[in-house]
Amino acid sequence: MKETTIVEKSKEKKLKNGVLVTGLPGIGMIGQVVGRYLVEELKCKKIALLFSPHFPHQVFMTKSGGMRMIRNSFFVHRGRKRDILILVGDVQAMSSVGQYEVADAVLDYAKKLGVKEVLTVGGYSTGKISEQRRVFAVATSDKMRTRLKKFGVIFGEARGSIVGAAGLLPALGRLRDLEGACVMGETHGGYVDTASARQIVLLIAKYTETPVDIKRLDALAKESEKTIKKVEEDIKRNMVIPSETTGKVVSYIR
Amino acid sequence: MKETTIVEKSKEKKLKNGVLVTGLPGIGMIGQVVGRYLVEELKCKKIALLFSPHFPHQVFMTKSGGMRMIRNSFFVHRGRKRDILILVGDVQAMSSVGQYEVADAVLDYAKKLGVKEVLTVGGYSTGKISEQRRVFAVATSDKMRTRLKKFGVIFGEARGSIVGAAGLLPALGRLRDLEGACVMGETHGGYVDTASARQIVLLIAKYTETPVDIKRLDALAKESEKTIKKVEEDIKRNMVIPSETTGKVVSYIR
Amino acid sequence: MKETTIVEKSKEKKLKNGVLVTGLPGIGMIGQVVGRYLVEELKCKKIALLFSPHFPHQVFMTKSGGMRMIRNSFFVHRGRKRDILILVGDVQAMSSVGQYEVADAVLDYAKKLGVKEVLTVGGYSTGKISEQRRVFAVATSDKMRTRLKKFGVIFGEARGSIVGAAGLLPALGRLRDLEGACVMGETHGGYVDTASARQIVLLIAKYTETPVDIKRLDALAKESEKTIKKVEEDIKRNMVIPSETTGKVVSYIR
Amino acid sequence: MKETTIVEKSKEKKLKNGVLVTGLPGIGMIGQVVGRYLVEELKCKKIALLFSPHFPHQVFMTKSGGMRMIRNSFFVHRGRKRDILILVGDVQAMSSVGQYEVADAVLDYAKKLGVKEVLTVGGYSTGKISEQRRVFAVATSDKMRTRLKKFGVIFGEARGSIVGAAGLLPALGRLRDLEGACVMGETHGGYVDTASARQIVLLIAKYTETPVDIKRLDALAKESEKTIKKVEEDIKRNMVIPSETTGKVVSYIR
Repeated sequence: MKETTIVEKSKEKKLKNGVLVTGLPGIGMIGQVVGRYLVEELKCKKIALLFSPHFPHQVFMTKSGGMRMIRNSFFVHRGRKRDILILVGDVQAMSSVGQYEVADAVLDYAKKLGVKEVLTVGGYSTGKISEQRRVFAVATSDKMRTRLKKFGVIFGEARGSIVGAAGLLPALGRLRDLEGACVMGETHGGYVDTASARQIVLLIAKYTETPVDIKRLDALAKESEKTIKKVEEDIKRNMVIPSETTGKVVSYIR
Repeated sequence: MKETTIVEKSKEKKLKNGVLVTGLPGIGMIGQVVGRYLVEELKCKKIALLFSPHFPHQVFMTKSGGMRMIRNSFFVHRGRKRDILILVGDVQAMSSVGQYEVADAVLDYAKKLGVKEVLTVGGYSTGKISEQRRVFAVATSDKMRTRLKKFGVIFGEARGSIVGAAGLLPALGRLRDLEGACVMGETHGGYVDTASARQIVLLIAKYTETPVDIKRLDALAKESEKTIKKVEEDIKRNMVIPSETTGKVVSYIR
Repeated sequence: MKETTIVEKSKEKKLKNGVLVTGLPGIGMIGQVVGRYLVEELKCKKIALLFSPHFPHQVFMTKSGGMRMIRNSFFVHRGRKRDILILVGDVQAMSSVGQYEVADAVLDYAKKLGVKEVLTVGGYSTGKISEQRRVFAVATSDKMRTRLKKFGVIFGEARGSIVGAAGLLPALGRLRDLEGACVMGETHGGYVDTASARQIVLLIAKYTETPVDIKRLDALAKESEKTIKKVEEDIKRNMVIPSETTGKVVSYIR
Repeated sequence: MKETTIVEKSKEKKLKNGVLVTGLPGIGMIGQVVGRYLVEELKCKKIALLFSPHFPHQVFMTKSGGMRMIRNSFFVHRGRKRDILILVGDVQAMSSVGQYEVADAVLDYAKKLGVKEVLTVGGYSTGKISEQRRVFAVATSDKMRTRLKKFGVIFGEARGSIVGAAGLLPALGRLRDLEGACVMGETHGGYVDTASARQIVLLIAKYTETPVDIKRLDALAKESEKTIKKVEEDIKRNMVIPSETTGKVVSYIR
């Protein structure tokens, strides 16, 4: 395999007002949690696999004695209002050259299926645990900004740069006349943040007019919230000079 | 040389129910020991060489004053029941991009020769020295799993990921409608494990219905077994707190 | 995106005696300061963007909630005497292979637009703060050397090698029959050196017979000069053995 | 520049029984010293330049205010008996992929010009200063071995691997039906070894039946020999436990 390759598992008809939503590993694992939840909850159909020489040269052994390549997978949800193409995966490409190549392949495939909008999901790391879990975003067009603002998404506050597919896909999509945005769940950065992922799932459900049952995620979010708080308290208790820890929480997961 | 290149040394007729067996460097050097033993014992014919810019840019000096590129080699055994294509070599490609490219070239060539199955050989590192030397495996199809189970191969117990050609070849082979499996000899991980390689040679002989004289390997395995035990005893004797060493043996070769 | 790509924003007519001037990041940030000043002061028109998989796989978030790929940009100034194509950007390619590929793309585009000369801008690091801020240069042709010498540019004194686009563009341009030179502002190396950039802007204005208002840069240069001197004095004061610092100033910015 | 590129400076007629001799940087700088001496002494004509994106992305500034890309250069000597193509250069490619690509380009060009034999020059590092400076070699054919042995070249004693172009060129040349050998001057490894280079120049002169005036090299070799001995004595004198230094000389240049 010399280039990133997409293997289609079924012939699909064009998407209806298609939106590509990504759920890849990244800050707070928010993208991955969101992507997996949508795929399971919406009972999406797996329609294609993406392999790349820019992924690690490893295969996973499965519990049933099978083997599975490291890959990204495309799922589709055919909704009443619009269709969603969801990209989930184990990894992102390991180099800059690989990231651009994979993004290219993803956009080629998405555009072929009729995708009009690219909506990537990431985490916005603050180093703090916020109760609110706001949703920040940047977009490549005013229209998309306007549409997202209706649902409380905050533009113009996030600073810095977005690393990887969450940034490249909407940005490169713009060069192909796709509208695009990256929505980022506010998160500590040192934990898998299910509570923040929950906010993004709610947003995507509203934005795409897709009913998503959130109950299971509510439960997961509450539990993870408890664990995180417990860990944070343990950390503070074990600090030598507690006063210095105020406002700055040590991240112990990377 | 810009791409992985296979140089055929002879024009070969199609393999009869061909199986590709790999013997490349890896955990416990089991693959390499198995590959070399089969090539020697079955007096296989060398039919092709594989060179790659993803191998180190070095050549070996030979004892007779010759020079030899770093390479992988294909050997063939024409059996009564089925034909075996054996891939052995000094190295594996040094990067992920290289691993995928080399795997591609190997599968192209194997398929052209009529290979139907890919059976790679690796080691499964446990950090312990087991008397038994079980054989674990993962496969890409139920059929292959069923066939291998008949010979006592254990599915569903190995965990984690397989790095390199042992994993990539069957996994990428599946995308080309080749059946595939990786069989892994149980091994400590810190030694060249001839005893474990012996188990794999026995398995391959049975699986491919190929008579293989195992005597020479028996002798080698017994000798290496003695050496390993002696080394382990030396290590234990020199440990400061011997009780802590129980169940966990320091690996001193890498 | 598999290769460096230039996206043209407008169809441009051929340049009149065109010269390519580069303003990319480098020693003392002189190139970047020069490029940006010329673009702003001459109110240049942005005519093309250059993207590359050899740039980092990141996008910047803008204050207005937009997103912007890491890129280089081409601007044009249509002058009375001659036209200037200006290349500015956030970054240079991150590898040698990337640097050669990007340089290739830049020269392809420049030549297509009618560029005859390549004039890159860099810094020449001396580790000292000189009042004079001389301008050193190397050129690929005697003609260009002669023309630049008229404006006080010093040839034959700079030693060593030029890393990146400032060196590669004129050198590779020569293989395409473009004349080329790299002009380097004398600089400490540890600071953004607006005063040195000012000298280069003056040179380019004279060399290309393009009137450039230098007032704004005069002010910036004076201010930065004050800051640098203050910092240097602070450093000297805090040195344990001040006598050893004479003639060698610690660079604390990289 | 996306690939290694050879720029021909003149149209050359085919070489008479052509031999490619390489003089690139490596152990003891023997290759480079040999290549440069032959080029100067035989007043060879520069006929082509080789550039590569696998060389560093730098250009050298020359004393006269010019600039020069990092490159390799081909020179030709038209002899009475046979013609020699000499490859000299500043650097070798920086990666394995680059080394294979450059070797390919060199062999393409050499074969086009009519080269029949590839004779690369390297150093064989022993960590000792030998009076003799023997010449070791490995070859890709019995014929070449036989021919070189006539001149006292030692086969079958050198061990290990040859890194870079000195090994790759004859080995890859063999795949194109070129005969090849690598001759290695015995050397300490820690010094530029002109005395060892001298032995190789003498060998090449005899092997190719090309008269080469060795006087200038004799003088250089004697001088460098004195310097090396002085340095070695200084090192020994400054050793804390001199007895331990016997037979093992610290290399302080790398």
